[in-house]
Amino acid sequence: MLKAENNKKNKGRLKIIPLGGLEQIGMNITAFEYEDSIIVVDCGLSFPDEEMLGIDLVIPDITYLKENREKVKGFVITHGHEDHIGALPYVLQEMNVPIYATKLTMGIIEGKLKEHNLMKTVKRKVVKHGQSINLGCFRIEFIRTNHSIADAAALAIFSPVGIVIHTGDFKVDYTPVFGDAIDLTRFGELGKKGVLALMCDSTNVLRPGFTMSERTVGKTMDNLFAENTTHRIIIATFASNVDRVQQIISTASKYGRKVVIEGRSMVNIITTASELGYIKIPDNTLIDIEYMKNYSDEQLVLITTGSQGEAMAALSRMAASIHKKVSIKPGDAIIFSSTPIPGNEKAVSKIMNELSQQGAKVIFQDTHVSGHACQEEIKLIYSLVKPKYAVPVHGEYRHLQAHSELAQSMGIDKDNIFLLQSGNVLSLGEDYGAVVGNVQAGGILVDGLGVGDVGNIVLRDRQNLAENGIIIVVMTLERGTNTILAGPDIVTRGFVYVREAENLIEEARNVVSDALDDCLQTRVSDWGKIKMAVKDSLNEYLWKKMHRHPMILPIIMEVD
Amino acid sequence: MLKAENNKKNKGRLKIIPLGGLEQIGMNITAFEYEDSIIVVDCGLSFPDEEMLGIDLVIPDITYLKENREKVKGFVITHGHEDHIGALPYVLQEMNVPIYATKLTMGIIEGKLKEHNLMKTVKRKVVKHGQSINLGCFRIEFIRTNHSIADAAALAIFSPVGIVIHTGDFKVDYTPVFGDAIDLTRFGELGKKGVLALMCDSTNVLRPGFTMSERTVGKTMDNLFAENTTHRIIIATFASNVDRVQQIISTASKYGRKVVIEGRSMVNIITTASELGYIKIPDNTLIDIEYMKNYSDEQLVLITTGSQGEAMAALSRMAASIHKKVSIKPGDAIIFSSTPIPGNEKAVSKIMNELSQQGAKVIFQDTHVSGHACQEEIKLIYSLVKPKYAVPVHGEYRHLQAHSELAQSMGIDKDNIFLLQSGNVLSLGEDYGAVVGNVQAGGILVDGLGVGDVGNIVLRDRQNLAENGIIIVVMTLERGTNTILAGPDIVTRGFVYVREAENLIEEARNVVSDALDDCLQTRVSDWGKIKMAVKDSLNEYLWKKMHRHPMILPIIMEVD
Repeated sequence: MLKAENNKKNKGRLKIIPLGGLEQIGMNITAFEYEDSIIVVDCGLSFPDEEMLGIDLVIPDITYLKENREKVKGFVITHGHEDHIGALPYVLQEMNVPIYATKLTMGIIEGKLKEHNLMKTVKRKVVKHGQSINLGCFRIEFIRTNHSIADAAALAIFSPVGIVIHTGDFKVDYTPVFGDAIDLTRFGELGKKGVLALMCDSTNVLRPGFTMSERTVGKTMDNLFAENTTHRIIIATFASNVDRVQQIISTASKYGRKVVIEGRSMVNIITTASELGYIKIPDNTLIDIEYMKNYSDEQLVLITTGSQGEAMAALSRMAASIHKKVSIKPGDAIIFSSTPIPGNEKAVSKIMNELSQQGAKVIFQDTHVSGHACQEEIKLIYSLVKPKYAVPVHGEYRHLQAHSELAQSMGIDKDNIFLLQSGNVLSLGEDYGAVVGNVQAGGILVDGLGVGDVGNIVLRDRQNLAENGIIIVVMTLERGTNTILAGPDIVTRGFVYVREAENLIEEARNVVSDALDDCLQTRVSDWGKIKMAVKDSLNEYLWKKMHRHPMILPIIMEVD
Repeated sequence: MLKAENNKKNKGRLKIIPLGGLEQIGMNITAFEYEDSIIVVDCGLSFPDEEMLGIDLVIPDITYLKENREKVKGFVITHGHEDHIGALPYVLQEMNVPIYATKLTMGIIEGKLKEHNLMKTVKRKVVKHGQSINLGCFRIEFIRTNHSIADAAALAIFSPVGIVIHTGDFKVDYTPVFGDAIDLTRFGELGKKGVLALMCDSTNVLRPGFTMSERTVGKTMDNLFAENTTHRIIIATFASNVDRVQQIISTASKYGRKVVIEGRSMVNIITTASELGYIKIPDNTLIDIEYMKNYSDEQLVLITTGSQGEAMAALSRMAASIHKKVSIKPGDAIIFSSTPIPGNEKAVSKIMNELSQQGAKVIFQDTHVSGHACQEEIKLIYSLVKPKYAVPVHGEYRHLQAHSELAQSMGIDKDNIFLLQSGNVLSLGEDYGAVVGNVQAGGILVDGLGVGDVGNIVLRDRQNLAENGIIIVVMTLERGTNTILAGPDIVTRGFVYVREAENLIEEARNVVSDALDDCLQTRVSDWGKIKMAVKDSLNEYLWKKMHRHPMILPIIMEVD
């Protein structure tokens, strides 16, 4: 249907299609299509919501890209965070497409490709800020921005109907720790030329003012080092925040402390950043964790993962006293250089309590700045770019809505602002903008090695099992006569502590037996009906008796 | 052991024993024991942690009180919040003890007693601020405080070894909406007499400064009503925040709007508060939800429960479009007059997004103040009370620890500060303070009508079922020979979407069959060993194949 439409109505139109996006925050992947060319901006994964029980990761559904395989020219990546690059190894196994990114971003991507044995097959090109690449009918220019990882880029996508600017995740940092400030002039130049649409980061749109420079955290760190000279310092932060780690290392060096980096993801990223020259480590500062014992506490700083309370991360293991190489000591100064991402607050609190109980001093105030633009920065970008259309990106629906209001306050016509849902097809012409349809999109659940084999039915069962447990009723019937040869037996898991509920189980068995007798007497022989009778009678009994609804699973076996 | 000790070493000592407390935040219940007298301060319940799957409530383990039944003279209640009164109906069914509380607190407790048919059996006495009651060898004086519910009290507990002051939950509000400001003079007078120990609220001890007056929220509300004159206003707040509801009703009346109250718990509390004179509702302001249709949007304010994103509360049902009587309309101004309690952030965000998507305007900034004292207020209490010993209460461990530091900064000796865990027995004399032992204490899980029948094993099973699902392997064997008469059949729930995994299930069946054949050939006839063999082989196969560990449950039936 949509394909047919394309050929007529949307001829000569640019289509913008978020394939991950809203329903699964964090899974950033957006297709830009013009006639026979498709480019894809970012290819992120997302972490499961609470209700996605047992799920490890969520990756985008790329059915639409696979259906249009011949059109897809490449992935253009804005920066090296998981929610922008994490799904690449999964997607590249299904469709081999070249990748374009800045140097550090590509370095981090290559780490992933190596793990998945994809280095030889996937074409890659490193792009510098200010450079452009041509892909099909698109030209894409990388523009320098600032973010909580170095080498972030906004993209100016030159299409036949006009320029679209995608900011990626960004902030304005006039004094960044590494490299230069965001290239505001280029945003202004493009604005002067005329920009069709701006797709701008909405993460912090609810926050007034301006995000502080990363450098301010360095000053706080310096103060904390000055105040805590007699004990070990442990700092937890995001593995990918290379500039933060740089500042901690510089401060440690100034105070004559050795630095240990702990946590696999952090070691990986810092190694890459160091090899590529994005972090400068003074000689004899970094030591291996094995050599910690050669130094006294006041000579050490440990930088670790786990600032979000992740159960398997190094800091969680230290807090729970199951880390193999680090034991928390009374007096340790433990700095959380991060803010809990919504949903992680309780896990972070738990770890802080565990650390406190071991006598550590937990510090978390003023030790973090965001990597995302607040209201005044977003306004700055609008004032430079002056787009005709606005497509707020990166955020929950309420953020996009607030962004829409901010854009209106900057003079964008309300009808020219599009809040896209995953799979929406936004069609843009020089004087035309409308959502014209939907394509298959959204999240695919990854559980272990299984990609997509856990869907809604399975999740609903898991939810039910989680809350109520399961009662299995098993019986063996004689073929033909349906006489009961064995059972009914009742087995439960996750329901009640059986030793204390023997009577209950016995009564339940009687309820089931009565229901079976009824079936036999009324000559009900259809297994479906027998199972239903067992289920209904047991359900009613358990609700009456204990106000619970466990999953009830009758199993009938048949013997000659 | 402890009992024997008591008779000697702790003769003439006051024992303070938190029975809920730390491990289960919110479950406030503390026993004060001196020789043959025990009084209990508060009797709260707590809501389950994330890992307590399927659990509805957690109530305190009162084994210690039951073992010392003849000593227990009464429950003395500080205020009417669930975490201070919620477990009373459960506990009173096990031991009938008189209750002492201020008027509104008692009114709310009586609502609960009515529901549980306990009104006739349980003795109650309403106490006024400034009054004292005598219970065994204790005298307890109720001192006026401020909190997010009216009629809150601190308790001065006069014991043979000295005065202990328990603040309950409190803040200092010089301009409260209802009643008078906290009776600081009385704290000072007691301090002059000499206070043995201060047990002070730690909830906000990490926040510098002073908590704003509840009245400041009234001003914000007034502004919001003035700004949103053309649409319906919906305000979500805590059911028990009577003063907040009072301010909303007053503002509504000023702006000529009718007020609808929705949500069972809020209706209950506001009805009680209104009957007892704690809230003044202007004539013709409150209307029944059925009559909403007689008014236009700009004539209406709806006050509702659900500000914490609680799945079953009225606001969640409105957001999900399943509320029977209220549909969200574009333009509705929805004010969240609350701050998410840690752990609820994601649920609150979800509802805000749902409301935004229906076109409502979501407002949440500056619409709430805390009911708990910040650092300067806590210092104020210390400066007045000048206790010898400090026992920080109400908070996670890291709060108690920060409170300890604050108390030290106020001149309390570090050795005189006790951070108690649930069940700890603190023994106090005029010149003596030490934790001398432990009694059974902690949380008991309530699931449906079952109290305590879900324990760690059941929870561990639920966790496993939740993350991985279950595979049931069922077979019928011939008695004696162990010949397979039926099966092995494989049934799964919460594991994979079976229609798409038919091959996998078939392969799994083969793996099980092979394992059974091995058993038969090697003449293994013990069911335990057969089950283990099935489990192990299947486990190994599934891990290799898909990196998952579902619960595997082999069931053997036997037929002659």
